[in-house]
Amino acid sequence: MDSERRRLFTRREALAGAAGVAAAAALGKLVSAQQVPEDTTKVPGVPTSAYGWPSSFERLARAPVSTPFTSFTPLQHLNGIITPSGLHFERHHNGVPQVDPARYKLLVHGMVAKPMVFTLGDLKRYPAFSRIQFVECSGNSGSGLVNPVATVTAQSVHGLTSTSEWVGVLVSTILREVKPDRNASWALCESMDAAVMTRSIPMEKMWEDAMLAYGQNGEAVRPEQGYPARLLLPGYEGNANVKWVRRIKIGDKPFETREETSKYSDPVCPPDEGECYSRQFTFLMDCKSLITWPSGGQTVPSAGIWEIHGLAWSGRGHIQLVEVSVDGGNNWHPAKLEQPVLPLCHTRFRYLWKWDGREALIMSRATDSSGAVQPTRQQLIDLRGLVRGPDLGFAYHANYIQPWRVAADGKVTNGLV
Amino acid sequence: MDSERRRLFTRREALAGAAGVAAAAALGKLVSAQQVPEDTTKVPGVPTSAYGWPSSFERLARAPVSTPFTSFTPLQHLNGIITPSGLHFERHHNGVPQVDPARYKLLVHGMVAKPMVFTLGDLKRYPAFSRIQFVECSGNSGSGLVNPVATVTAQSVHGLTSTSEWVGVLVSTILREVKPDRNASWALCESMDAAVMTRSIPMEKMWEDAMLAYGQNGEAVRPEQGYPARLLLPGYEGNANVKWVRRIKIGDKPFETREETSKYSDPVCPPDEGECYSRQFTFLMDCKSLITWPSGGQTVPSAGIWEIHGLAWSGRGHIQLVEVSVDGGNNWHPAKLEQPVLPLCHTRFRYLWKWDGREALIMSRATDSSGAVQPTRQQLIDLRGLVRGPDLGFAYHANYIQPWRVAADGKVTNGLV
Repeated sequence: MDSERRRLFTRREALAGAAGVAAAAALGKLVSAQQVPEDTTKVPGVPTSAYGWPSSFERLARAPVSTPFTSFTPLQHLNGIITPSGLHFERHHNGVPQVDPARYKLLVHGMVAKPMVFTLGDLKRYPAFSRIQFVECSGNSGSGLVNPVATVTAQSVHGLTSTSEWVGVLVSTILREVKPDRNASWALCESMDAAVMTRSIPMEKMWEDAMLAYGQNGEAVRPEQGYPARLLLPGYEGNANVKWVRRIKIGDKPFETREETSKYSDPVCPPDEGECYSRQFTFLMDCKSLITWPSGGQTVPSAGIWEIHGLAWSGRGHIQLVEVSVDGGNNWHPAKLEQPVLPLCHTRFRYLWKWDGREALIMSRATDSSGAVQPTRQQLIDLRGLVRGPDLGFAYHANYIQPWRVAADGKVTNGLV
Repeated sequence: MDSERRRLFTRREALAGAAGVAAAAALGKLVSAQQVPEDTTKVPGVPTSAYGWPSSFERLARAPVSTPFTSFTPLQHLNGIITPSGLHFERHHNGVPQVDPARYKLLVHGMVAKPMVFTLGDLKRYPAFSRIQFVECSGNSGSGLVNPVATVTAQSVHGLTSTSEWVGVLVSTILREVKPDRNASWALCESMDAAVMTRSIPMEKMWEDAMLAYGQNGEAVRPEQGYPARLLLPGYEGNANVKWVRRIKIGDKPFETREETSKYSDPVCPPDEGECYSRQFTFLMDCKSLITWPSGGQTVPSAGIWEIHGLAWSGRGHIQLVEVSVDGGNNWHPAKLEQPVLPLCHTRFRYLWKWDGREALIMSRATDSSGAVQPTRQQLIDLRGLVRGPDLGFAYHANYIQPWRVAADGKVTNGLV
């Protein structure tokens, strides 16, 4: 499987790898197959380093590379539930702003008794809170819903979801300082990026479990994920988790920003009713799962016993059940859920499959603690009346079941085509 | 606190930072305070990247740098429970071997029905298993037990413990393939490093929960932590978790290697009995906790309310209770344990402290699910009869309570001095 994995890298990924090698070279750690000693026990190894990097034999990369605003996590090459910070998906609207943490300020104002400005040091002064949670872009998997094509990977269609341990201060702690008016009901959260990304968030959520995160997987939040501080809204669509947050304005109605009117709203066309309309403020990410191995672009080397594994998650609670089908959805079998199973977090599931070497359609279906069950693509289309939306273009909140077709030669393609 | 943090970096850490900057430069992401735009909303940001790095404003580093074999995790600057892979402590005995994963082989032989050689691909073929666990060097905190000095940091004395999500195959799965003899009781585990690090492990442990780990925090195990595969023995001293493992030989007695006879054995001198002796095979890491903020070398900026926080862990189960004292151990108060509290894993604890601005001695004490309570330094010395070991040199398994003295000016030093 290891040689298989390396075979799959695209030219873009190879370029990304080159960048990694350059970084390794800068640290004096460059190594290639030719440089590896024949007998590692006869040659002293490399001394300690201030900050470690992946082996230069590893070529994992976000993709596509060199696009300005979106890169996908290579889900098909990962295992466990933590996403390495360097491979957390990216979605920004005008690039990653370069922020000097010493100059960082957060203004909280509007319908509050006491408007305040917080430095990063101020935010770190308050009691901290950490949680392991997923963040998923609301557009994740959307391309596969609207226009499924055969040659896709788990990364290229579904790679806009990642899990980190986030550390920060609860927004409720900050709200107690500024004292919102009793009729305050919405908060405008604004980024300092060059898109001035702005979203309206219900005050219930801000009070309940929203966080201003300055830590990610032990160290500072990475630049692409909102350094030095971002909003984190457990279970909410990624876009609402405003990165590089510089301003929170409290009000009593939604602020109707571009990102919640022209974008990030879901078209719905009820089958027997009149006009299509847009669902606005569909914050919660739905119950979802994905087989990451074997998945599109990979190859099952031979008939025999293989462990199917993947991820399941929901914005509505924790994962209760993941079922796997290896016969196109006729029969379903419960998968093993790997501990820890945490709320609003990726959960790794595993299922032992005895493959007879004939073409097979494999898929997973998640059920969460709210009782929500992951729908098929057709069920989702019917539910949203998407068939009547001819010029749909794109669909958010696409939590459909992803079938993978395993051909007799082991090659895996999109089972929706 | 942020400016405070940067003030604390040593020259070595600054050099380490320079290496990080070089790496960032190689990726075209170099940024300094001078290069940060005055208004980040007016300048397009940086495009996506294949693999992300910390902000160049961050200077976290393992220390000391440029020593060959040991580097410590900067515990005092981290939060949550996951250690960033790049900052996982290092302990090797002749440098980090450079291993080509395509040439990796693991031999399992000795008292087995079927000796076998496994490639990395073979190991990955088996059902995988992931867990979030600490690894702690058995010598961690030993210098502070033997010779406590005033000017230490959490990193410099206690930084040989880190937590990762590890992914791999259970050793029991491999054992079922090679079929050990019924009277097999010990396994020799050998590294491919230039020290040929070798330890004997009881077969009970190998069957129970030992793992051959090839994944760490989502991606491949880092070179310093045993790439491409290492032994992972939950709760056992780090040294026994043989990295870069190339051979497992099954036998019916310990193999009495250098690392379990001359090293990694604990001197004990019973107070009223005769000869001192060495405890051999003291595998389990004991119940322990440490306040990481505020800790040695840091400064509490002013009187007022501050959140004390730190880590607790045990090789015997999960953390049941952490108590904090802010008056030198006279009174103890339960700390809040952050979820998830996982077995054999770092647990983050937090305690709100109202500091009156006078000198204070703060400390934490952990109790684990086995009922074990963390001892004071004196209790540990008495228990081991260390006072009779005049030429002790070093002590393993040093899980004593670490007091920190907060002076009236806020400066924190070792409370044991």
